[in-house]
Amino acid sequence: MFTLRLKTRYVETDQGGIVHNSAYIIYLENARIDFLQSIGLDINELERKGVQCPVVSQSVKYLKPLYSLQEIAVQVQVASFSKVRFFLSYEITRGKDKILTGQTEHCFLDRYFKPQALSSEAIQAFGSAT
Amino acid sequence: MFTLRLKTRYVETDQGGIVHNSAYIIYLENARIDFLQSIGLDINELERKGVQCPVVSQSVKYLKPLYSLQEIAVQVQVASFSKVRFFLSYEITRGKDKILTGQTEHCFLDRYFKPQALSSEAIQAFGSAT
Amino acid sequence: MFTLRLKTRYVETDQGGIVHNSAYIIYLENARIDFLQSIGLDINELERKGVQCPVVSQSVKYLKPLYSLQEIAVQVQVASFSKVRFFLSYEITRGKDKILTGQTEHCFLDRYFKPQALSSEAIQAFGSAT
Amino acid sequence: MFTLRLKTRYVETDQGGIVHNSAYIIYLENARIDFLQSIGLDINELERKGVQCPVVSQSVKYLKPLYSLQEIAVQVQVASFSKVRFFLSYEITRGKDKILTGQTEHCFLDRYFKPQALSSEAIQAFGSAT
Repeated sequence: MFTLRLKTRYVETDQGGIVHNSAYIIYLENARIDFLQSIGLDINELERKGVQCPVVSQSVKYLKPLYSLQEIAVQVQVASFSKVRFFLSYEITRGKDKILTGQTEHCFLDRYFKPQALSSEAIQAFGSAT
Repeated sequence: MFTLRLKTRYVETDQGGIVHNSAYIIYLENARIDFLQSIGLDINELERKGVQCPVVSQSVKYLKPLYSLQEIAVQVQVASFSKVRFFLSYEITRGKDKILTGQTEHCFLDRYFKPQALSSEAIQAFGSAT
Repeated sequence: MFTLRLKTRYVETDQGGIVHNSAYIIYLENARIDFLQSIGLDINELERKGVQCPVVSQSVKYLKPLYSLQEIAVQVQVASFSKVRFFLSYEITRGKDKILTGQTEHCFLDRYFKPQALSSEAIQAFGSAT
Repeated sequence: MFTLRLKTRYVETDQGGIVHNSAYIIYLENARIDFLQSIGLDINELERKGVQCPVVSQSVKYLKPLYSLQEIAVQVQVASFSKVRFFLSYEITRGKDKILTGQTEHCFLDRYFKPQALSSEAIQAFGSAT
């Protein structure tokens, strides 16, 4: 379980007075990138080698609203992985309040957007993180 | 079936050279708001009356990448609705290419974030749009 | 004088109930890119050739607030240009209301971020657009 | 002098491979809001009282590009203030590299967007921060 702590930004609110639903998608990415780096998969390094790691699908449930300038925790972990895909699950909390649950699905693509098998480094990383 | 045509923005791309996954979430919102207005549910008017219409959950599948300054069509329709919820389904296409499919779930809240039953206007609007 | 018409997006509002100041910066970019394309300088094509056209400086005055889902016009024109720089000026209007005035400064860089002299195509384009 | 440290986000990059110019505008806001709070001017509290503190004008110079996931420092200080306006100046640095300099101008508005004189609290806050 990896946790990123961050503070919601003023710009992320909308006229409803709460954080816009799209901002949570960014929070998930922030946590995902830091998590992947922590297990040895550095996105910038992968991209320099011509490997992309796109979001193939994502789904989120919004449980409670967030307001501007609130401290939150974004938890991410490996849900499962196969030879060509991996799935991450997320939870956003504010103190004891559960704010969001979500999942994302990913693959690795080469520079021509052709799917690649997970590298042995990735399999080892996900295996030890599961 | 309601269709919004729009052009992807330069700012919506990322260092991978393609449109960032969060931008599609905005495209869905743009189409949803125009669609709801077209069936008589004006978001600004609802909010002036103290009614919010948040995203309760959303899920999307990314089928192909989008690039900057491309013309796309965002289709939205009512998938189903109950006394307290409604579900919309979406498809983004670029010419003949299917780019994304997605669903969102919504409810109506009063100004204290308390769920409300769908108004008779909303039920009629969704009924005739289904 | 080039004019882009667009509609403010719900997501661009903030908890103050108005469009966030950063969204105007995007509107200027949208108009700038369409304008440059209209005079023969296609940003995507330039980037494929390894030429970047960054914002070197920008300044804006916010005259009146914008609200969600409003139709606006973003006007852009060449203010001046030299051998290595060009300056654009902007005006955003909503009907008869002047909403913003702004200026941006640009140069051309090669793929190593080294400044380049304006190409003869660019000079001709700016000359005929001034 | 107030300093906010933050890390650039992947989503803030564009297809040019660098952080998009609009992201810096958000960094300035993040630093400004934390700074104002540190001198006793809490934006959320002001807004609850019906006071808005918009950006009246802003100007920035981009000196060097930023890349994704870089640690930066955003410095902000009061440049000057009058009975109805205040001016902040900013500097973004990455290690020893100066990345951006900028200024913003602000006023206080009541809930009808009518300008207000600076409160005695604000004058005292700016006076001791200058």
